[in-house]
Amino acid sequence: MVNRIFIILAAIGIPASVIGALFDWPTVMMFIVYCLTIVALAGFIGRATESLAIVMGPRIGGLLNATFGNAVELIISFFSLKAGLIGIVLASLTGSVLGNLLLVAGLSFFVGGLKFKRQSFSVTDARHNAGLLIFAIIVAFVIPEVFSQTLSDKKTLTLSIGVSIVLIILYLAALFFKLVTHRGVYQNSEEEVEQEEQEEEIPEWSSKKAIIILALATITVAYISEKLVHTFQVVGETFGWSELFIGIIIVAIVGNAAEHASAVLMAYKNKMDVAVEIAIGSTLQVAMFVAPVLVLLSFMFATPMALVFTWPELIGMITAVLLVIMISIDGDTNWFEGLVLLSAYVIMGIGFYLL
Amino acid sequence: MVNRIFIILAAIGIPASVIGALFDWPTVMMFIVYCLTIVALAGFIGRATESLAIVMGPRIGGLLNATFGNAVELIISFFSLKAGLIGIVLASLTGSVLGNLLLVAGLSFFVGGLKFKRQSFSVTDARHNAGLLIFAIIVAFVIPEVFSQTLSDKKTLTLSIGVSIVLIILYLAALFFKLVTHRGVYQNSEEEVEQEEQEEEIPEWSSKKAIIILALATITVAYISEKLVHTFQVVGETFGWSELFIGIIIVAIVGNAAEHASAVLMAYKNKMDVAVEIAIGSTLQVAMFVAPVLVLLSFMFATPMALVFTWPELIGMITAVLLVIMISIDGDTNWFEGLVLLSAYVIMGIGFYLL
Amino acid sequence: MVNRIFIILAAIGIPASVIGALFDWPTVMMFIVYCLTIVALAGFIGRATESLAIVMGPRIGGLLNATFGNAVELIISFFSLKAGLIGIVLASLTGSVLGNLLLVAGLSFFVGGLKFKRQSFSVTDARHNAGLLIFAIIVAFVIPEVFSQTLSDKKTLTLSIGVSIVLIILYLAALFFKLVTHRGVYQNSEEEVEQEEQEEEIPEWSSKKAIIILALATITVAYISEKLVHTFQVVGETFGWSELFIGIIIVAIVGNAAEHASAVLMAYKNKMDVAVEIAIGSTLQVAMFVAPVLVLLSFMFATPMALVFTWPELIGMITAVLLVIMISIDGDTNWFEGLVLLSAYVIMGIGFYLL
Repeated sequence: MVNRIFIILAAIGIPASVIGALFDWPTVMMFIVYCLTIVALAGFIGRATESLAIVMGPRIGGLLNATFGNAVELIISFFSLKAGLIGIVLASLTGSVLGNLLLVAGLSFFVGGLKFKRQSFSVTDARHNAGLLIFAIIVAFVIPEVFSQTLSDKKTLTLSIGVSIVLIILYLAALFFKLVTHRGVYQNSEEEVEQEEQEEEIPEWSSKKAIIILALATITVAYISEKLVHTFQVVGETFGWSELFIGIIIVAIVGNAAEHASAVLMAYKNKMDVAVEIAIGSTLQVAMFVAPVLVLLSFMFATPMALVFTWPELIGMITAVLLVIMISIDGDTNWFEGLVLLSAYVIMGIGFYLL
Repeated sequence: MVNRIFIILAAIGIPASVIGALFDWPTVMMFIVYCLTIVALAGFIGRATESLAIVMGPRIGGLLNATFGNAVELIISFFSLKAGLIGIVLASLTGSVLGNLLLVAGLSFFVGGLKFKRQSFSVTDARHNAGLLIFAIIVAFVIPEVFSQTLSDKKTLTLSIGVSIVLIILYLAALFFKLVTHRGVYQNSEEEVEQEEQEEEIPEWSSKKAIIILALATITVAYISEKLVHTFQVVGETFGWSELFIGIIIVAIVGNAAEHASAVLMAYKNKMDVAVEIAIGSTLQVAMFVAPVLVLLSFMFATPMALVFTWPELIGMITAVLLVIMISIDGDTNWFEGLVLLSAYVIMGIGFYLL
Repeated sequence: MVNRIFIILAAIGIPASVIGALFDWPTVMMFIVYCLTIVALAGFIGRATESLAIVMGPRIGGLLNATFGNAVELIISFFSLKAGLIGIVLASLTGSVLGNLLLVAGLSFFVGGLKFKRQSFSVTDARHNAGLLIFAIIVAFVIPEVFSQTLSDKKTLTLSIGVSIVLIILYLAALFFKLVTHRGVYQNSEEEVEQEEQEEEIPEWSSKKAIIILALATITVAYISEKLVHTFQVVGETFGWSELFIGIIIVAIVGNAAEHASAVLMAYKNKMDVAVEIAIGSTLQVAMFVAPVLVLLSFMFATPMALVFTWPELIGMITAVLLVIMISIDGDTNWFEGLVLLSAYVIMGIGFYLL
C-alpha cells in the first residue's frame, strides 16, 4: 500500500519537478512538489538498500544500511551547505535527532502499545545505544558549544574538525564491534541468531535491479534537493517560519518520512527490536556520521560549518536523549511511554515554532 | 499520637488565627500561628481524602488522592498569585519538588535504614516515576526557561500555556494508565494485588464524615492561607529572608508537613512502596498538575505567571531529579542513600539561604 | 618490572632534583625531572599504603587507602595554593576527575577488552558509585557555580565552606557504610567475602618498613612539589600551554600515573572490580575529600579558594560522569566501551588545549 503511494508520488512528482522549474510555477507549490517527491524517492532508496543488504550478507549489508540510511538527508544538507544555509543544516540535524528520538520512537511505542499491553526489545542493545547517545549528543555536541564561548572562531573550527574525526572513527569502530568482533555475543541464545538470519533471507529485488534503482533514485534526489533548498527563503517568508523551524520540522520530516513509516509499522507488528533500531540507530547515524561528515565537507565551500548548535537546539537534544534513555533502558514499552515521548516532541515543536 | 497533636494544634490555631487577625497581633507571631494551623489542617485533609479513597474504590480513590494530595499547596499558591507574589509561587513549587525528592525521600530512606539493613520497593514503579520526573522537570520546565531567553515575554507566556496543557493531559493519561489500562499489569504476582486490596479495606471515617471534614478543613485552609500570604513581606524583612527562601523552605514545608510525617512513618514500618509513592508521587503531582494549573489560573489575575523558574531553582530541581533517579532506580535503599539525599538538601538549603 | 623502573627513576631523580636546583639547571628540564621523580615516589607511597592496609585489617586499611591514595595530588595542590595558583588547583582537580573517569577507566576497559570478549564487575558497586558521582560532581560542584553568579564573592566562599563540610562528612559516612555497617551486605555470596580476605593476606613489606618508606616518600614528594609548582609559569610560556592545560593534563597525570598503571594491569588480569575501584573510587576521593579539604586549607593562605570551576571544566566533568555511569551501570565492559571513554577524553583534551 505504502509502496504503491510512493510509486504514484514519484511518477507524478519527478516530471512535475522538471516542468515546474522550467515554467516558473509558484515557489510554495514547487516546495510541496519537491518535498513529496523526495519522500517517495527516499522510500525507493530504503527498499533498494535493504535488498542489497540481504544479498551482500550481514557485514557489508550493515555497512550499506549505515551509509545509505541517511543518504537523502546528507544530500539535502550538502546542497544547503553549498547555498551557505548553515543555520538550516544544523537545524535539520537537530530535527532529525528530535524527530527520530521523540516522534518516531514515540509513535512506535504508542501505536504498538495500543495493540499490545507490553512490548519488549533487547536490553543490551538499549544500553549500547544509550552509551552512544550520551557520547554523541551530550559529550561531542556539548563540548564544542561550551568551549566556543571562550574560543576564537578559528579555534572553534579546529575543535569541530577534531570532534568530527573522533565521531567518525568511533562510528566505524561501533560498526566493527557490532558486525565483526561482537556479532551475536550479547544475544540471548543461538536460536535468536538463527531466527534473525532466516527472517532476512529473501531480498525484494535482484542486486542488479537494486543497484540501478539506488543509483537513479539518489541522482534524482540530488537534482531535486538542489532546487528545494532554493525555495526555503520564499516559503519561510510566506508562512512566517524561521530558518530554524523549516530545518527542524520540515527538512527533518521530509528526509526521514519513509523510515518513520516503516518503524511504526514494525512496532504495530510487535517487532520492537527493528522499530527501536530504526529510531535510535538512525539518530546515532545522524549524530555520529552525517553531522561530522557535513562538518568536514563544509570546508569545500565558502563558509565552513562549526559543530556549534544554538542553545535551544542543544538543550532540546540533550533533554530528548535523557528522556529516551530513561524510557527505553528497561527494554519494555507501552502506549503511555510513547505518549510521554510524543508530548516532549509537541512541547519542543511549540518552542521552535515560536522562536 | 501525631493525630492528637494535629487536633490540639487545630483547636488552638483556628480561634487564634481569627482572634489574632481581629486584634492585630504581631505579624511574626501570626505567621507562626497560621503555619502551624495549616499543618494541622493539612493532616485532616489527608486523612479525609484517604478514607474517601478507600470507600470510592481504587480508581476514583486514586483520582481523589491525585487532586486533593496537594490541595493545601494549591490554595496557598492561589492566594499568592492573587497577591501578585509570582516569585513566591515559583519558589514554593521548587521547594515542594526539592522537599519531596530530597528531604522526604531522604528522611524516609535514612530513618527506615536505621532499623532495616536493606529496604526495597518496586523497580517498575521506580522506572515509571523516573521517566515522568525527567519529562516534567528536565523537559517541560527546562524548555520554557531556555527558550524564554530569546523569546519575547508574550511568546514565553504562549509557550508556558502550551507546556501547561501538555503537562495536564499527560498527568491525566498517567492516571488512566495506572488505574485503568495497566492496573496490576506490572505487579509481580496476583498475591500482591490481593494483599494490597485487602490492606486498604477499612476506612478511618465514614464517607459522610470524611466529606464534611474535607470541606470544612479545605475552607479553613483557604481562609488562613489568604492571611498567611500577607505576612510574607514583614516576616522576610524581620529575619532577612529572601522571597526565594520563604517560598522554597517555609511554604513548601508547611504545605507538605503532614504528608512528610506519614512518609517517614511508612519507611519506619518498612512499607517502602508507600513511602516512595508519597515522596515521588507527590513531586509528580506538583510538577505535572499543581504547577500547570497555577499557570493557567494566573491568567485570571493582573500578572500572569510564565513557567519560567530562576536558574538556581531550575538547576536545583534538575540535579535533585538526577540524584534521586540514580539512588532509587534499583529499588533498594539503606541509611547511606538517605543521607546522600539529605546532604543534597542541606547544600541547596545553604545556597538558597545565601541568595 | 614497573617497580624496578620506579626504583631507578627515584635513585636518579631525587639527587638530580637537589643538584639541579642548586646549580640552576634549565627550568623545562627540571620540570621533567620533578615530574618523573614524583611519579616514581607516588608508586612507593602506593605500595607502602597497600602493605600497611593489609597489616591493619580491612577497616583501618580502607581508611589508609582513602587518605593516602591521593596524597601526592594533595601535596602538589597544597603548594600550588600556597603559591596562589588557584586556577591550577581547580584545573588539576578537574584533570584528576576526567583522567580517572575517562582515561584510566577507558584504558582499563579497552586493554582488558582486547584480551577478554566480555568483562564484568559488581553491579551493586557500580550503582553505589554512580549515586556518589552524581552527588559530588553534579550536585556539590554545580550548585556553587550556578549560585555564585548571583552571590557576592564573600557569600560564594561561605557556600563553598558549607558544601565542603557536607562533602567531607558524607565521604566519612561512605567509609563507615562500606567498612562497618554494610561490609559484605551487598556481596553475592559468603565465598566472595572469604576469597577477598584470603587474597589480601600477604603484605609486600613489614609494617615498620612500610611506615618508614611512606614517611620518607611523602616528605620527598612535598620537597619536590614545592619546586615543581614554581616551574609552571616558565613551562607554560615555553610550550604555549595555558594554566588550565597544565593543571588538567600534566599535574593530573603526574599525580595519578602510578595508580593508572595498576588499574590497567588489573584489567588485563581480568580483575575488573579492582580496576573500577581504582578509577571510580579515586575520582570520588578527589571530589569528596581532596577538593573540599583543599577549599578548607586555602583559608590558611592569602587567597582563599571557592569551589567554583570554570564552565568548560564543570561541563567536562558533568558529561564525563553521565557517560561513565551509562557505560558502567550494567557491570559489563568490552573494548568498544573503553574506546568510547577514551574518545571523550581526546575530545576534551583537544578542547582544553585550544582554550
